[in-house]
Amino acid sequence: MNRGFGSDNHSGISPEILEAIGKANTVHALAYGEDEYTVALEKEIKRHFGQQATIYPVFNGTGANVLCIDAMLRSHNAVICAETAHINVDECGAPQRITGAKLLTVATPDGKLTPEMIKQHLHGIGFQHHSQPRVVSVAQSTELGTLYTLKELKTLSDFVHANNMLLHIDGARLANAAVALGCTFRQMTTDIGADAVSFGGTKNGLMMGESVVLLNPALNEDFLYRRKQAMQLCSKMRFVSAQFLAYLENDLWRRNAEHSNAMAQLLYQQVKDLPGLEIMYPVQVNAVFAKLPHEVWTKLLEHYFFYDWDEAENVVRWMCSFDTQKEDILQFVECLKGILNDYNNKK
Amino acid sequence: MNRGFGSDNHSGISPEILEAIGKANTVHALAYGEDEYTVALEKEIKRHFGQQATIYPVFNGTGANVLCIDAMLRSHNAVICAETAHINVDECGAPQRITGAKLLTVATPDGKLTPEMIKQHLHGIGFQHHSQPRVVSVAQSTELGTLYTLKELKTLSDFVHANNMLLHIDGARLANAAVALGCTFRQMTTDIGADAVSFGGTKNGLMMGESVVLLNPALNEDFLYRRKQAMQLCSKMRFVSAQFLAYLENDLWRRNAEHSNAMAQLLYQQVKDLPGLEIMYPVQVNAVFAKLPHEVWTKLLEHYFFYDWDEAENVVRWMCSFDTQKEDILQFVECLKGILNDYNNKK
Amino acid sequence: MNRGFGSDNHSGISPEILEAIGKANTVHALAYGEDEYTVALEKEIKRHFGQQATIYPVFNGTGANVLCIDAMLRSHNAVICAETAHINVDECGAPQRITGAKLLTVATPDGKLTPEMIKQHLHGIGFQHHSQPRVVSVAQSTELGTLYTLKELKTLSDFVHANNMLLHIDGARLANAAVALGCTFRQMTTDIGADAVSFGGTKNGLMMGESVVLLNPALNEDFLYRRKQAMQLCSKMRFVSAQFLAYLENDLWRRNAEHSNAMAQLLYQQVKDLPGLEIMYPVQVNAVFAKLPHEVWTKLLEHYFFYDWDEAENVVRWMCSFDTQKEDILQFVECLKGILNDYNNKK
Amino acid sequence: MNRGFGSDNHSGISPEILEAIGKANTVHALAYGEDEYTVALEKEIKRHFGQQATIYPVFNGTGANVLCIDAMLRSHNAVICAETAHINVDECGAPQRITGAKLLTVATPDGKLTPEMIKQHLHGIGFQHHSQPRVVSVAQSTELGTLYTLKELKTLSDFVHANNMLLHIDGARLANAAVALGCTFRQMTTDIGADAVSFGGTKNGLMMGESVVLLNPALNEDFLYRRKQAMQLCSKMRFVSAQFLAYLENDLWRRNAEHSNAMAQLLYQQVKDLPGLEIMYPVQVNAVFAKLPHEVWTKLLEHYFFYDWDEAENVVRWMCSFDTQKEDILQFVECLKGILNDYNNKK
Repeated sequence: MNRGFGSDNHSGISPEILEAIGKANTVHALAYGEDEYTVALEKEIKRHFGQQATIYPVFNGTGANVLCIDAMLRSHNAVICAETAHINVDECGAPQRITGAKLLTVATPDGKLTPEMIKQHLHGIGFQHHSQPRVVSVAQSTELGTLYTLKELKTLSDFVHANNMLLHIDGARLANAAVALGCTFRQMTTDIGADAVSFGGTKNGLMMGESVVLLNPALNEDFLYRRKQAMQLCSKMRFVSAQFLAYLENDLWRRNAEHSNAMAQLLYQQVKDLPGLEIMYPVQVNAVFAKLPHEVWTKLLEHYFFYDWDEAENVVRWMCSFDTQKEDILQFVECLKGILNDYNNKK
Repeated sequence: MNRGFGSDNHSGISPEILEAIGKANTVHALAYGEDEYTVALEKEIKRHFGQQATIYPVFNGTGANVLCIDAMLRSHNAVICAETAHINVDECGAPQRITGAKLLTVATPDGKLTPEMIKQHLHGIGFQHHSQPRVVSVAQSTELGTLYTLKELKTLSDFVHANNMLLHIDGARLANAAVALGCTFRQMTTDIGADAVSFGGTKNGLMMGESVVLLNPALNEDFLYRRKQAMQLCSKMRFVSAQFLAYLENDLWRRNAEHSNAMAQLLYQQVKDLPGLEIMYPVQVNAVFAKLPHEVWTKLLEHYFFYDWDEAENVVRWMCSFDTQKEDILQFVECLKGILNDYNNKK
Repeated sequence: MNRGFGSDNHSGISPEILEAIGKANTVHALAYGEDEYTVALEKEIKRHFGQQATIYPVFNGTGANVLCIDAMLRSHNAVICAETAHINVDECGAPQRITGAKLLTVATPDGKLTPEMIKQHLHGIGFQHHSQPRVVSVAQSTELGTLYTLKELKTLSDFVHANNMLLHIDGARLANAAVALGCTFRQMTTDIGADAVSFGGTKNGLMMGESVVLLNPALNEDFLYRRKQAMQLCSKMRFVSAQFLAYLENDLWRRNAEHSNAMAQLLYQQVKDLPGLEIMYPVQVNAVFAKLPHEVWTKLLEHYFFYDWDEAENVVRWMCSFDTQKEDILQFVECLKGILNDYNNKK
Repeated sequence: MNRGFGSDNHSGISPEILEAIGKANTVHALAYGEDEYTVALEKEIKRHFGQQATIYPVFNGTGANVLCIDAMLRSHNAVICAETAHINVDECGAPQRITGAKLLTVATPDGKLTPEMIKQHLHGIGFQHHSQPRVVSVAQSTELGTLYTLKELKTLSDFVHANNMLLHIDGARLANAAVALGCTFRQMTTDIGADAVSFGGTKNGLMMGESVVLLNPALNEDFLYRRKQAMQLCSKMRFVSAQFLAYLENDLWRRNAEHSNAMAQLLYQQVKDLPGLEIMYPVQVNAVFAKLPHEVWTKLLEHYFFYDWDEAENVVRWMCSFDTQKEDILQFVECLKGILNDYNNKK
């Protein structure tokens, strides 16, 4: 399969990451997180997120999100999130099953929540018949490739805490967001007051590895048991931690994310003015959402794999990866242009 | 950390496995199991377990065990297992939390169940107040390093099915068992009538990867959703499947397991007649359980890492791995002999 | 507290029901449903819902709803319902916690679902990342006091089954609906193809008692265990069953529902033309939803208890009960008129 | 069905209780616990259990037990209880399903736990792979009709708290225990340091009604939501609260329990010396457990309903109720003697 635009998890392993796995493959190490790599990662994470940050490697993004939520609430609570949130749309009900809690969703124009939108769910507080909102979960960057500014995050966070709730950030693509905003992880999470972060790696070059980063110290209590019981405790954890170390230590996260963001910008620039094609959201990280005629995108699918995001609306998603090449973009655009031309001529 | 006898998951990655990961690291692949490696694995598994076998890669052993059970019952059912079963002792209540079902445990002399032992839990069938037994779960090899013979497995399986239940095999160390019995995976699972198997890889040389192998076709229904919702769906699955392929295609599983079993035998032969040391269970795979004076094993712990299995009874566990070397054993025995000698002389 | 318009569960016990409890209070009876009253009820229910109907008394409406859903799906499934559904709004997340499944809600103008509305959730079928819709749940009458016609129900039911789903009816007020439609329970449930019904009693004169009526025979499997495990099995069940028998045997259900519906009609007729008051939904059963100035309804609350349904929109709900008296209505209307007058004069 | 010895929930409603239900059946009352009866009960309970006690009426014993446990732990915790505990044997896995936690059981000679027995489960504290013990649950009186002395309870409670756990008392028959020990509810619960009590009524004359009594104030947080979400919130709660008020206000609980205990003593005295019959446990409350020849008890079953407690061991249970009459006992004994005589003569 050639490099396409299906997802940033269609790409493979960043060479530095694979090398780090190999290097960690020496003799024996204690299992379940007591190895030297995990211990080093626990230090390294504080450099990036601040002194109160603790990291818990897990297997996948759903695991990270659900464990963050699980640490923040009990089953009679609710999580407020965007309708488009991964936890709402793409986890097959894992949050509901594992935590027993309810999601309260909000329709948004661009995948981003505002205090105003959250307010609609803040009724029935103290009313025993209603699930009590306890967590607000936002994605940075969002599932629609958009970004909260630091100020927007701070405003949200203050609102959330003022209403006796906690803030979760789904950071499956936190690196892409940091690069786009030109800020550190810490500025985007700890400094704006987030309580827990799903800190992703797989979508930006890791082989396999996500993590929970807890910023609110109270959430650490019992977390080890919660992770184990939720089946997210890795035995040979050194091989996940070594990946994250390589990811963090030499700015690999930044280089990879800068690259995939730049590729999406290139793609955007190349297609934005094509007749018959409409860009749906600001292209802020590594995703381009385009609306184009049904006949066009289905024909394009014969050449490249990507997801139709909203089939009824003819919106498709094109994702760039750390390994997307300039030529990949140019060839793809060429192909698209040809199909569009044929289509426009036929009309 | 030197090679010790703590666990077979303290070892690293078998070189062939690491190489396979590297080889799979080419361009793009569909995520979530639609890649060519996973497709190839689905074929390969039938060669080893029979035509009706289906494989679902997952992240870890707890995930494999819980998903097998989850496919076989609903929350009002119960699982019958040995008191020493991993699902009972070492999964922090994951089976209960994820499936809602109950475990009914049986005290055993050697980690092995018999129909007679199971019978004690077969009362209250049809009585609405009692959890209804639906699954019998055995480990092959067991957590005590012992083995069921094929005949014992067949007898168990027949009994289980005659009582309207299903048979699960926790095969975290299935390779060690197959090697020790000189049989194929199929003979030990499909042919004796097992319904579902947790087929392990991590403890025998994989970096990270376990799997669910379903033999009872009815269990496949909805399994994809169950795995996803239980947070055990890997995005870059090719890297797990490629490991299993390398494990299965060139008999790597056999070579690794033969080696670790042989190392345990060597260790056993070297220590079995030492004065003051008692071997607790037949050494049939890669584990040696020994009882020795408290002062002796605690002193030995200063030199080598291993687990006290039953502190009160002074029973410890020594595990051998695919990478354990003959010299590791001999040095360890030397060290142990010295401590034992000192102890015996002091008495 | 005087008779008000807060809820039909603010009323007490219908005299015939209380008498039936007293009559059932003779010597001993087997517990947990093996008593003669429950056996008689099992027969009686077939007379009302058809031969394939089975009844399982439970404690409350949430219990009935959740157990119906629990019998129809597993945790990776989803329930499609109106945004205003009791299971979505007023059960503190019980469906999610107990079944692990997800609710997919639909905004409706009047609390009623249509096939068109359901369709929006029928994408991603077969896609492992999405909760798979399995149950459509409607309330008859709805939480907004509106009704499905028999034809609408049949259309819905056909659509539901054509899409491999099952139909649940929340019949907390099924009697009010039957009376209003002039039909039997059977015509409204079995004959239109419903699979399971929460058949209520408490809101129409029972002291305490709801029930699950299963019409799809396959749903009976394991139901006894599911009810017990969900903590909805009553020990002295004769006292619930005796209530339902009295409710069903002499048309008490009909008389009570006719009365409360008639009282709501009276109320409606008395207020519908008042200046400054707007009736929100057709008054088809025993509820009147009115929009009126904030100052007016809050003042009215000083005299009568009722619920603000949508505080922001100044919509309130007035419920009539089996014991509501004509004078109650007239006095209430008098009081309301006075406040409205003052308000209108002041303007 | 005549009065038999099947269970204390085979009896009906105590006349005072039925009368109280009738008296509470006046006009309207707020639902869900805001009625005057529930408010009065909240006061009354403090008179019986002490000032910090709070009461939450629920539907049944399983509900009360599970909600107590649910308030005390999270899913990664474990409950230590006797193998014979109702929560282990007779709730169809409700504790596991609803709380997700694990039960750790202890074999006991007489249904009673001691610190020594509990200790066997206090290993692996802090070990992430093990469910962490958090609750010790005892029944007073026990399922075997035995009693803890106040001193035994105090010793247990101190031990439990010293080990960072909480103490739950399943008081389905708390009244029988209080009467037998000649103490108050408070002395047996609050004063010995219990944290939560399932306070039963149904087995001692209520129509339907159990309750959770929380003594540890921290447990009240979120309890209202937990009860609702667990489907144990009664709408017309006044009719449960009125029963408990009648039960508590005029010592009805005492009179009923004294009577059923006395009947059990009478039965015990009448049968204890019969040849071929063995009494299994001290008869301390209202249950008699007897071992007698298989042929005898099965023949007796043709005349009277009761449960075989351990069919294999030929142990049966005879329960007395608040409404058991002296003649019931004498006739029963007569019948038993006849069968035993025939049996002994035949031998």
